[in-house]
Amino acid sequence: MKVVITGAAGFLGQRLAQRLLALGHLSDNNGQDQKIDQLVLADVVPAPHSGDPRVRIATGDLSDVAFLRSIIDAETQSIFHLAAIVSGQAEAEFELGMRVNLDASLALLEICRQLEQKPKVVFTSSVAVYGGNLPQTVLDTTAVNPQSSYGTQKAICELLLNDYSRRGFVDGRTLRLPTISIRPGKPNKAASSFASGILREPLNGETAICPVSPQLRLWLSSPRQAIASLIAGHNLPAAALGNNRSINLPGLSVTVQEMLAALERQAGREVAERVQFSPDPAIERIVASWPGAWDDSRAKALGLTGDADFDAVIQAYIQDDRPT
Amino acid sequence: MKVVITGAAGFLGQRLAQRLLALGHLSDNNGQDQKIDQLVLADVVPAPHSGDPRVRIATGDLSDVAFLRSIIDAETQSIFHLAAIVSGQAEAEFELGMRVNLDASLALLEICRQLEQKPKVVFTSSVAVYGGNLPQTVLDTTAVNPQSSYGTQKAICELLLNDYSRRGFVDGRTLRLPTISIRPGKPNKAASSFASGILREPLNGETAICPVSPQLRLWLSSPRQAIASLIAGHNLPAAALGNNRSINLPGLSVTVQEMLAALERQAGREVAERVQFSPDPAIERIVASWPGAWDDSRAKALGLTGDADFDAVIQAYIQDDRPT
Repeated sequence: MKVVITGAAGFLGQRLAQRLLALGHLSDNNGQDQKIDQLVLADVVPAPHSGDPRVRIATGDLSDVAFLRSIIDAETQSIFHLAAIVSGQAEAEFELGMRVNLDASLALLEICRQLEQKPKVVFTSSVAVYGGNLPQTVLDTTAVNPQSSYGTQKAICELLLNDYSRRGFVDGRTLRLPTISIRPGKPNKAASSFASGILREPLNGETAICPVSPQLRLWLSSPRQAIASLIAGHNLPAAALGNNRSINLPGLSVTVQEMLAALERQAGREVAERVQFSPDPAIERIVASWPGAWDDSRAKALGLTGDADFDAVIQAYIQDDRPT
Repeated sequence: MKVVITGAAGFLGQRLAQRLLALGHLSDNNGQDQKIDQLVLADVVPAPHSGDPRVRIATGDLSDVAFLRSIIDAETQSIFHLAAIVSGQAEAEFELGMRVNLDASLALLEICRQLEQKPKVVFTSSVAVYGGNLPQTVLDTTAVNPQSSYGTQKAICELLLNDYSRRGFVDGRTLRLPTISIRPGKPNKAASSFASGILREPLNGETAICPVSPQLRLWLSSPRQAIASLIAGHNLPAAALGNNRSINLPGLSVTVQEMLAALERQAGREVAERVQFSPDPAIERIVASWPGAWDDSRAKALGLTGDADFDAVIQAYIQDDRPT
C-alpha cells in the first residue's frame, strides 16, 4: 500500500514515519493488514531521508493544489494529514493559518473525493477546539467553542472530515491530541511550546521561562503515546466510529506545578530550579482556554492507550530523546 | 445606514426586507438607532421590488467574489446573510452546496475583514447542525454533530463567524432557526418542506403527502417570530453574546400528529384529513437527525421571543398568508 504523511518534516511526522517503516504494515479499509510499499513524506521543507527504499520525499506547499495532486493519487490508500500552522503562529498570521490549516485540508479532501478508491484519512486535531466556559472534565458531547483561529480551523476540518466520511468520499478519523510533552528539539510557535520547554531545557542543562501560572492545568500526552494512537486510530474499523469520527485521545491531567514536581523527582532539585516564571498574557489567554482534562473513555473502549503518569513521560524523554 | 440582505428573493428574505422597510431603522455597532438609507436585496434571481426608493436590487451569484464586492462596501453597516442551498438540495448536489453555503460565506467574511468599518453580520443557521445521539432537549453546551452536508456547512460558518468576531473582523451573530412552519407558497427542496406543506396545502384546499412518521417531533417557529428574532438578534449588543455568537432561537416542540390535531381544531376535520402518509426514508433520515427541542433560555434571557402555541401559528398563517 501507498501511505502519505503531510507535515512529515515536523516532529510528529518524523516519528510517525520511523514507526511506520519499522512496523511495515497497516490495516486497510477492509481490516486486512497490508504491506507498506511506498511512504510519501510531504512537507514544505524536505523531510529527513533514512535511505529506506520505500520512502519518497515530496517537498512543496500543501496549499498548492498541483503539489497535493502530485502526492495523492489512485494508489494512495492512507493519508496521515498532520501538516498545520501551529496555534501561536495561526493567531499571529491569520491568512497563513487559513491557507494551510483550512484551504489545504479542504483541497486534500476534494482530491480524495475525486479518487475511485477512497483513502483512509487520519487527521490530527487538538485540545484547542474546546474553549469558553468548560466543565472540569470535557465530555464527547461537550460543544466545541475554540478561542483561537488554530482551534477554529481544526474544528472546521473535523466537521468536513465527518461529512466526507458520512458520504463515503473518504474513510476519515480525527484524533484529538492532548498537548504533546516532552517534544525534543527547539521551542516552536505553538502557544503550548513551554509545556515541553520547561522540562526539556532544564534536562538539557539550560534555563527555561514558563509564561503561565503554576496552577494552570494541562491535558498532556507523551510523543510515544501520541504516535501509538495515530497508528491505532488509523487501524480502527470505520464501523467502530459510528456517526462521529472525532476521538478525544487519552491523556494526563497535570498542572505546571505537578510537572515541575515530577521533574524534581526524576532529575533533582537543581534541574527543576532552572525554570523561571515570567507571565505572557497572550500565551496564557490561549492555553488557559483549553481543557485541563477530557473524558477519554471512548478512546480507551476503542483500545487506545495513554501514559501511566508524568514521571514516566519524563523517563521516556531521558531514554529516547535527551541529547547525550 | 446601508443594509444588505443575501437570499433576499427567498421567503424569509422578502419578509425581512418588508419588515426592515416598515421599521426604517436598526441599531448600529454602538447601540445607536440608525436610519436605513439603503437596503440592498441580493439574490441569484431578482428580489421583488416594491418601488421603495431605499431599495437597490442586486442580481448575481454569491459565489462570484466580484458580485459580492459589488454589494458590500465601506458604507455597509449590516449584512443579513440568509442565502443558502437548502438541506435536501445540498445533500443531492454536494458541490453546489459547498460552493454557496461554504465558499460564498467565507468570501463574504473575507470581504468584510478587509473593510475599515467592520459590519454586523447576522447569519442564519439551523436545527440541522445537531444530530446523532441527542439528549431529549439539546442544550447550548451540546456538541453539534450534523448528519447532512447542509448542517455541516452551517456549523462551519458558525465557527468562522465566531472567530471573525473574536478577532474583530466583523460583529457577527448566528441565529439558529427552528424549522419554519408555515411557509407560504410552493414546496421547496428543503428536507423539512413537508412541515409547512402538510398544513398549507390542506388549508388551501389541496391534498398533501407527509413523508415522515406522525410521531416525529419537530422544533418549529412561525415566519413572524423568525423575522422578529432576526431583527432583535441584529440589535443585541455584542457584549451580551460573550465568547459564543451562536444563539438557539425560541421554538415550539410539536409532533406531526400534534400539528395535525391543531389543524383540525383550527380548520376542521375535513381539512386535516387532506393529509396522507407516505414514508420517504431519505427525508425521514435527515429530519429525524434534528433535535425535537432545544433549551431556548439563553435566547429568552436576551429578550428574544417565541410563538405561544401551534394553534396560534396556524391562525397567523390564515390571517397573513392564506391565498384568498
